[in-house]
Amino acid sequence: MTRLAHLAIAVRDLAGAVRVYTEALGLSLAGEETLPEEGVRIAFLEAGGVRVELLESLGPETPVGRFLARRGEGIHHVAFYVDDLDAALARARERGLQPAGSPRRGAEGHRIAFLHPSGSHGVLVELIQAS
Amino acid sequence: MTRLAHLAIAVRDLAGAVRVYTEALGLSLAGEETLPEEGVRIAFLEAGGVRVELLESLGPETPVGRFLARRGEGIHHVAFYVDDLDAALARARERGLQPAGSPRRGAEGHRIAFLHPSGSHGVLVELIQAS
Repeated sequence: MTRLAHLAIAVRDLAGAVRVYTEALGLSLAGEETLPEEGVRIAFLEAGGVRVELLESLGPETPVGRFLARRGEGIHHVAFYVDDLDAALARARERGLQPAGSPRRGAEGHRIAFLHPSGSHGVLVELIQAS
Repeated sequence: MTRLAHLAIAVRDLAGAVRVYTEALGLSLAGEETLPEEGVRIAFLEAGGVRVELLESLGPETPVGRFLARRGEGIHHVAFYVDDLDAALARARERGLQPAGSPRRGAEGHRIAFLHPSGSHGVLVELIQAS
């Protein structure tokens, strides 16, 4: 069963965005993490069993930095939990979706992979196998 | 407590998008609904307690039709459940967020309101008071 894990929003000012999503919109801040290898600092917000992640780039030449330069602030990707990452990737590929990069370890040590938005109607999809 | 209700994806071809999100990505189709007053046909997908909604416009001069012309396919808005819509709107406005249109009835008869993306870091936010 595929279930929504989080949606991630690229922002220019992490502290300001955390204030909006907690004080103005009522989500709860659950923690923050810096992933230097992804070039991103993340604030995790609880939204009732799923998370909203706010992403601030660590520099212009990172994936989130390039996204912000090209598209501006907004939703960067949507992540789903799957039971078996390799089986989920094989099924997606069989139906014409293209991986974006190779499977790797993401936040909290989970195995993750991305699918290119061209196959999923404009949405960059992350698949996560909970470890 | 604010909790994620759904995320909505604007698509050009509802049947094709339903096939991708069910067959390739493993979500379950829960139903479809046409809202002529919003100019949209919606497919509801279950994703583990939250929903993914696929939105197909009923014409170019609808909100989703204009979004598709301007931005292409992709995430259109994110919806959160709140306990009290009027209190949530008042809190958001106090902190500088702007309503987009007036509160009204949305899918399934719930009272809903939208907040302009300029205040929420590029994300069109829908607030829903479950009826």
